[in-house]
Amino acid sequence: MMIDFYEHFPQLKVELEETRSFILTQVTLRNKEIELALNDMILSGGKLLRPAFFYLFSSLGNKEKQEADQLLKIAASLELLHMATLIHDDIIDDSPLRRGTASVQSQYGKDIAVYTGDLLFTVYFDLIAETMENSGFLHKNARAMKRLLLGELDQMKLRYNPNNTVKEYLCSVDGKTAELFALSCLEGAYFGFSSEQTQQLAERIGRNIGIAFQINDDILDYTSNSSALKKPVLEDLCQGIYTLPLLLAMEQAPEIFLPFMNKKQTITIQESAVVAELVKEYHGVEAAFHIATNYTNKALQDIRQLPESVEKQQLLHLTRNLLNRNN
Amino acid sequence: MMIDFYEHFPQLKVELEETRSFILTQVTLRNKEIELALNDMILSGGKLLRPAFFYLFSSLGNKEKQEADQLLKIAASLELLHMATLIHDDIIDDSPLRRGTASVQSQYGKDIAVYTGDLLFTVYFDLIAETMENSGFLHKNARAMKRLLLGELDQMKLRYNPNNTVKEYLCSVDGKTAELFALSCLEGAYFGFSSEQTQQLAERIGRNIGIAFQINDDILDYTSNSSALKKPVLEDLCQGIYTLPLLLAMEQAPEIFLPFMNKKQTITIQESAVVAELVKEYHGVEAAFHIATNYTNKALQDIRQLPESVEKQQLLHLTRNLLNRNN
Repeated sequence: MMIDFYEHFPQLKVELEETRSFILTQVTLRNKEIELALNDMILSGGKLLRPAFFYLFSSLGNKEKQEADQLLKIAASLELLHMATLIHDDIIDDSPLRRGTASVQSQYGKDIAVYTGDLLFTVYFDLIAETMENSGFLHKNARAMKRLLLGELDQMKLRYNPNNTVKEYLCSVDGKTAELFALSCLEGAYFGFSSEQTQQLAERIGRNIGIAFQINDDILDYTSNSSALKKPVLEDLCQGIYTLPLLLAMEQAPEIFLPFMNKKQTITIQESAVVAELVKEYHGVEAAFHIATNYTNKALQDIRQLPESVEKQQLLHLTRNLLNRNN
Repeated sequence: MMIDFYEHFPQLKVELEETRSFILTQVTLRNKEIELALNDMILSGGKLLRPAFFYLFSSLGNKEKQEADQLLKIAASLELLHMATLIHDDIIDDSPLRRGTASVQSQYGKDIAVYTGDLLFTVYFDLIAETMENSGFLHKNARAMKRLLLGELDQMKLRYNPNNTVKEYLCSVDGKTAELFALSCLEGAYFGFSSEQTQQLAERIGRNIGIAFQINDDILDYTSNSSALKKPVLEDLCQGIYTLPLLLAMEQAPEIFLPFMNKKQTITIQESAVVAELVKEYHGVEAAFHIATNYTNKALQDIRQLPESVEKQQLLHLTRNLLNRNN
């Protein structure tokens, strides 16, 4: 999957392969069982989107001043933070699959998953401590990580609540997904020695891409099938996480949806499938796609303001691709 | 409990109260439910041992060079890291009680406990990023945190294994408990501007205190009752964690213990109580106490080598007290 996705970005592909190899060297553990679980996860074909945006933004800057080793470690830190949160999310969600292979918690139990996620936090943290001293970015990372977790906690608090609003949804997404995309782009611009203006644009672009990405992801939960998505569909719905397509469909006809929502945890898989059909019937998917497109367009507009370069074209290309994906 | 424990250390008591108040200010969250859970945990009377040793070692140094604000934040960081690992440990252990009040996971569920622990990691991390740049201690912290987690993972891997050795036990304890004590003492010496020699002694003293402390804790699991200990007794045994008193008793008469151990997860509470009696009968508690005393004596011997001062006497006093506690 990864190789296809970056076929038009040969330089980036090399950088991401290097990032992945480097991450593998960072998770050598005396506990071989966990090392294996992490290796599986690393090699199972994630797109390394956060390192990808980081690298594209770094290449907009002053290449003479850049240090390849520093950039590699920062790219890896972003993916490691993402992986750590994925592992902990899967504990919460009780998710059996992740990237098409068994999640750490389904394979080894919640216990090991808690510590494995924590271990990745320490690796992440060691890498940024090594590469970001005196930049103010250690604090920025801590703040981003905190917002990310608060976004997850917000989402949990809103579970099985049929009165969720679109605003609450967007606030949670801004934390749990957009924050790390924003940080990735900002760090790329900063550690690539771009101008202040590019740095500001980068953070905003990352945030809008992140929101669009998450909405798109939530749409796929309604439109995809399990084999393409490589994770169970309608997972969120069964777990009481009401995402944008459902929230928008409900605005059209609350009386149709409320009887299902009021079943809360007792909703069956069959009923969930009915709700999913209703979401499409009441144009929830189209409306969500429309909002995602707005965020993508904001990002594209900002990208167009970046200094002219090959990388700018690649950013436009990659950002457009990301919203047309079906997995 | 805390107030009694430090009654002979008025200066330290003030510093620890300040540390606790500061920690409270650091866990102000928009999620009030979790804020409350954390406040309960902070106010429920932990001894703040790691900040205590940190402060005692810092006061051996050059007081004119010290910055009160920096010391306060580092003291808090040590307790926050400890709290984060406690919360995650309780998920693994399924522990209903912590410090005499309901554990975060038993009160709010594993889901919230995972993220709450993660949140404390970010607060910890932000504090050390703020106070330790350019000291090499960010890396030392990441390494300590990694060892701590590997110690926990080692312990999990050894569960329900009747062939555990004393060496494996001590190796796990060295990671899961002693590492953070060693770091606390070392950071006290370093950020208090002590000599290199004192720093080296500090780390070793902390490590030996940590090992003695954990052995003592494991002894209490066999000798204490639930109300004094404020957590369920024989918890470790039921969960397949075979600690030093049991391992030493088993060495005396494996044939007596093995039939029980071979029951693994199916051991009943009644059978656990029988094992606990056998552990005492075969002098497992005394033998463990003997080993703990050896570690304490090593620590006391090193403390005596520290520069002469009031604080040195306090360190001797506190270290001796710690091994005679019954809760």
